[in-house]
Amino acid sequence: MTADLLVTGLRELVTCEPELGDGPLGVVTDGALAAQAGRIVWIGAAADADDKVRLVANGRRLDARGRVAVPGFVDSHTHLVFAGSREAEYAMRARGASYREIAAAGGGILSTVRATRDATADELVELARPRLAMLLAHGTTTVEVKSGYGLTTRDEIKMLEAIGRAGESQPVDVSANFCGAHEIPPEYRDRPDAYVDLIVNEMLPAVAERRLARYVDVFCEEGVFSIAQTRRILEAGAAAGLRAKFHADEFVTLGGAELAAEMGALSADHLLKARPEGVAAMAKAGVTAALLPGTAFFLGLPYAPARTFLDTGVRVALASDFNPGSSMGGNLQLVMTMAVSQMKMSPEEALLGVTLHGAHAMGLEGEIGSLRPGKQCDLVLADVPGWRSLSYHYGVNHVSHVLKRGVLVFAR
Amino acid sequence: MTADLLVTGLRELVTCEPELGDGPLGVVTDGALAAQAGRIVWIGAAADADDKVRLVANGRRLDARGRVAVPGFVDSHTHLVFAGSREAEYAMRARGASYREIAAAGGGILSTVRATRDATADELVELARPRLAMLLAHGTTTVEVKSGYGLTTRDEIKMLEAIGRAGESQPVDVSANFCGAHEIPPEYRDRPDAYVDLIVNEMLPAVAERRLARYVDVFCEEGVFSIAQTRRILEAGAAAGLRAKFHADEFVTLGGAELAAEMGALSADHLLKARPEGVAAMAKAGVTAALLPGTAFFLGLPYAPARTFLDTGVRVALASDFNPGSSMGGNLQLVMTMAVSQMKMSPEEALLGVTLHGAHAMGLEGEIGSLRPGKQCDLVLADVPGWRSLSYHYGVNHVSHVLKRGVLVFAR
Repeated sequence: MTADLLVTGLRELVTCEPELGDGPLGVVTDGALAAQAGRIVWIGAAADADDKVRLVANGRRLDARGRVAVPGFVDSHTHLVFAGSREAEYAMRARGASYREIAAAGGGILSTVRATRDATADELVELARPRLAMLLAHGTTTVEVKSGYGLTTRDEIKMLEAIGRAGESQPVDVSANFCGAHEIPPEYRDRPDAYVDLIVNEMLPAVAERRLARYVDVFCEEGVFSIAQTRRILEAGAAAGLRAKFHADEFVTLGGAELAAEMGALSADHLLKARPEGVAAMAKAGVTAALLPGTAFFLGLPYAPARTFLDTGVRVALASDFNPGSSMGGNLQLVMTMAVSQMKMSPEEALLGVTLHGAHAMGLEGEIGSLRPGKQCDLVLADVPGWRSLSYHYGVNHVSHVLKRGVLVFAR
Repeated sequence: MTADLLVTGLRELVTCEPELGDGPLGVVTDGALAAQAGRIVWIGAAADADDKVRLVANGRRLDARGRVAVPGFVDSHTHLVFAGSREAEYAMRARGASYREIAAAGGGILSTVRATRDATADELVELARPRLAMLLAHGTTTVEVKSGYGLTTRDEIKMLEAIGRAGESQPVDVSANFCGAHEIPPEYRDRPDAYVDLIVNEMLPAVAERRLARYVDVFCEEGVFSIAQTRRILEAGAAAGLRAKFHADEFVTLGGAELAAEMGALSADHLLKARPEGVAAMAKAGVTAALLPGTAFFLGLPYAPARTFLDTGVRVALASDFNPGSSMGGNLQLVMTMAVSQMKMSPEEALLGVTLHGAHAMGLEGEIGSLRPGKQCDLVLADVPGWRSLSYHYGVNHVSHVLKRGVLVFAR
């Protein structure tokens, strides 16, 4: 067949499609891959490449020189557009400061809200760009980014516009999640239902009209948004064409997992305190569990019970939760190490978590997350002796090249 | 004064010497530093640099363009010279395999011993070189490396020679620790005292005669070397001119902390199970506690009680424990994050742990570990808005430049 890109010299080509190679990840040893116009057209043994693939004139041949290839990582839960820093809070927490003490000292989520409200959309885009570049350099080719530090119609729209523009200005695909229900803003502290009214009656229609988001999110948690409020927001979001993808059962068991199943959400996220019935309901409804071990690590808290989800048949995605307060980091290779060492996921389950299952959590599994003919050619090359070293040799960046839709967009 | 290197444009110059700047880390804002023949000769405000420092002809001026400078990191506990891989064991452990099952499947420390015995010194040097380059790129300028995967006189000498040669072939200063007492080799399993005899009567004299090590180490642990055996080896080491620096009270309380105090060891390492009396004895004797959070992280175990040591007045060093079985990673920026988020050390204590206190754990505090006139110019420049971001923004590499003895040895 005809191709405009041929990648050869892959010691291991990890397709994440079992029928294409060995084991649950479908690994092709000494593999090769061809793409045409940004889509994969052929996967096979490097020895067969020249027989099977005809490279067009001006087509690109990339010799991976024994590197390992995996699908571009999909980070399905981040808050990476924000202004300000919460370094001081990080230091206070180490000294044992409570949430209340941190808030009294001017920290907490509302400090990010203040800084983000004060920033222009241009400033937010400028701040996001190096963060996206850092993600790309660590292998992430698709990312979900939430609003939720504006909490007024004007500032939520500003954040979503900044998220969209940040996405357009560099190679990582960015999908926006409208998270106006991230926190109750101070001006509505005594009348939270009025804030829910504002979200439903003003923010959501404005977001939908401008087509600024693909998803709708709610921080469903004690002291934030109740199950009833969450249902109301998600239903209004669905009516506006936004898929549900929300924070559920993180610190307190409220029944977020059950609600995610009831609503047919793409993902329920965090889930440290989900009930067994909720987990079973998620399995039945096909809701992906998006677990965020970096947050547990950064806050020094217990990790989500990943094995409970996996052993109940729930698909587990792993995401970074990149945000200034509870997880200031976006290296999904390290997130995989946490999944294996702390949550007892297998290296295979961890890699699926940041690739195919991350794509499921974003509703993009038909386009990205694995390497098979027809999908986008989002490809990461890594300088490792075998794919397991992506998480086994931890805390460093193994990525040497990143291709997005068949175009080399990062190399070092 | 005269200098052959002048570094300006430092948003923050973190000296780790309180009298040279603000706070416990002696931070100079908008700082500069001058060096001559590899040693620091001046530290001050960038605005004063041209008045105070006369750069010699051909002297180098480095504009740090607003970056942050910290002392080169000192990694005081590693096993980074080895052959083979233990990826498979890492995956088995996630499945809940016991130490016994891992050993039965050919894993565990003895698998590294087999592979290292089978390797030549040349091969060990080749394997170590990229690991040292990775450390350097992450800011480490001095590292301790242990033998202990040979466990025969011939193979321990071979390892120590490889450690020495690996050190000479690249910029990171490498100090060897003779750790023949890392494990009881299979051939001595039924007569461990005979192996101690071999260490004392044959290995130690051979090591000392060839000047292959600066330190002596023992894995003092239930089922490995007892307190009495450890004392015997450390005393023989001291007689041969080697300072004690050893694995103590990691999994079982044996009294390693007390022994370290009694022997005047440079450091006692791991220390998850030290008794309060042992901690107090270490404080009184001035023994540094070398804590290794990466090992707890990688194995999914509890972290060492750092606050107990700090609050008792023990100096705490933080090291990577880089090794294929229990901590396959050497990023000390991430080790600092673990110290803050998991062990509740302050960001200041964490930075001292990988700099000045690491130097204490190696007996090199007169030469390295902080930035003051007279010390070596081992300097790391980082692309961060402030020094706390070295650990706050985690899982990535912030290092942009590394200078060793005033020479630029890494830049990206």
